[in-house]
Amino acid sequence: VILTVTLNAALDVTYHVPALQVGTAHRVPTMDERAGGKGVNVARVLHALGEPVVATGLVGGSTGSEIRALLSGEQVRHSFVDITARSRRTVVVADGAGATGLWEPGPTVAPSEWAAFVRHFTALLKVSQVAVLSGSLPLGLAPDAYGQLILLARQAEVPVILDADGPALLAGVAAGPTLVKPNAHELATAAGVDTVTDVPAAIGAAEVVRAGHSTDLVASLGPNGIVACTSAGRWHAAPAEPLTGNPTGAGDACVAALARGIAYRLPWPVRLADAVGLSAAAVASPVAGSVSLADFARLRRTVTIREL
Amino acid sequence: VILTVTLNAALDVTYHVPALQVGTAHRVPTMDERAGGKGVNVARVLHALGEPVVATGLVGGSTGSEIRALLSGEQVRHSFVDITARSRRTVVVADGAGATGLWEPGPTVAPSEWAAFVRHFTALLKVSQVAVLSGSLPLGLAPDAYGQLILLARQAEVPVILDADGPALLAGVAAGPTLVKPNAHELATAAGVDTVTDVPAAIGAAEVVRAGHSTDLVASLGPNGIVACTSAGRWHAAPAEPLTGNPTGAGDACVAALARGIAYRLPWPVRLADAVGLSAAAVASPVAGSVSLADFARLRRTVTIREL
Repeated sequence: VILTVTLNAALDVTYHVPALQVGTAHRVPTMDERAGGKGVNVARVLHALGEPVVATGLVGGSTGSEIRALLSGEQVRHSFVDITARSRRTVVVADGAGATGLWEPGPTVAPSEWAAFVRHFTALLKVSQVAVLSGSLPLGLAPDAYGQLILLARQAEVPVILDADGPALLAGVAAGPTLVKPNAHELATAAGVDTVTDVPAAIGAAEVVRAGHSTDLVASLGPNGIVACTSAGRWHAAPAEPLTGNPTGAGDACVAALARGIAYRLPWPVRLADAVGLSAAAVASPVAGSVSLADFARLRRTVTIREL
Repeated sequence: VILTVTLNAALDVTYHVPALQVGTAHRVPTMDERAGGKGVNVARVLHALGEPVVATGLVGGSTGSEIRALLSGEQVRHSFVDITARSRRTVVVADGAGATGLWEPGPTVAPSEWAAFVRHFTALLKVSQVAVLSGSLPLGLAPDAYGQLILLARQAEVPVILDADGPALLAGVAAGPTLVKPNAHELATAAGVDTVTDVPAAIGAAEVVRAGHSTDLVASLGPNGIVACTSAGRWHAAPAEPLTGNPTGAGDACVAALARGIAYRLPWPVRLADAVGLSAAAVASPVAGSVSLADFARLRRTVTIREL
């Protein structure tokens, strides 16, 4: 199976209102709730593709119970470790015009809870083909928490993907993951440059970040597709035309494709075409982060791959 | 004890953000959660005054569990009936400039759940001096649900206060509660007039609403204080000067004072001075719906009472 790790899992709540107006009260006629957090979203996409996947991480409190129940309802397998503090909710207020987000502060993880997770993760690695580590670290964890998990995966000879930003990304890269997947902003920050706006800049920044490590790097550049700097070569993959839609979840769809590519040892151009096609399907989806397999099949055919 | 009934209890969540901007994402650095719903707020004010009170009503799901736990944490006695559907949350986004509210849809109550509540309420009436029925009716209940509870209270010879609006108010008045407490807007709607902007208009509308019933009526007119049309006379009570602050919970504080006035058979001018003073203390409070006893004592002295 592919193992996804979400240390700061969330209950994603969407309030649908006709028009959000600051300073007034709104009755919310309809609302959706979904298990969330980047690793959970990766697991959902892999499940939609028919891939065996297990979502793990940390959940707590009543929100944690709801996260578990919602994943069970979707038939996404999960095996989270309980924490005392309550998992966060993310509230998105969607009106016709756009989305307004409110991210609750996350829980604080106790040292004993982290130790319990490390043991749990070590056990799950024994049945995993690939491990995916995604998203922010909750309070209470050291910046090198992902680094610790990456070392465990390496010891278990399980390829490991890291999708994080800031100090968690830098500390993770130092532990030598198989692959990191920053977006343009995260890549620029990690490389110590102001912005990464085009493919040559992305290549340059990627080589700075992975210097001294055997880590492959795939950077997602939004409408400009993705750039891969790997030990096997460099590529740029892009959709035929920039898509409009909801970019939420496109990065997680990209990671899902890359994890599957590693699990099946697919050639890099295949992995990258999958990654761009799946991201494009996520952008085209009316529901943030979900993908239609028909969209994926259609959009994947339009991807152009260029070796650099 | 004073019994407060909240059929549509809520978990009141407040997100504190520096500035809410539509269309963008916000990290919420601090948030508060509190048990809510108008009857719960009445119970909290009575508890702050040192009055024996029991909060009852309907709660369900994980939100319902949190409502119970939060009331227990405040030492407010409660005895709710469980429903299957989940209690609603109200989300208020507070920034420096104001408050933006998002009211989740409430639960739907099954007929058997309503029957269970009626039995529970009947039992609680045996130990109650006054019953207070407050707030909106959840889906699944008949518009005369409050009317049914009022008839039970009358049969038990327990004075009963109704604070509701729309059809629930009209159907409730038909059952002959001891007292109703509409605000100006609710009073106008119930009387079938456009607006109630001054004291004479409030008196006229009040007499239309209570015509044919022995029900006393106290209308809260916001900064203009309150008007009472009762079998013992008519009064206008107002603070020395209009207060600025958070009007949330002022109506519930008013109802708390009126319930206490009935429980102790206080003279009407005393009840009304308490009601205005307690409402003013709620408006002056930095935390919506809470009251400081020092504010209450200070503001109560400034209230002017005029018999009409």
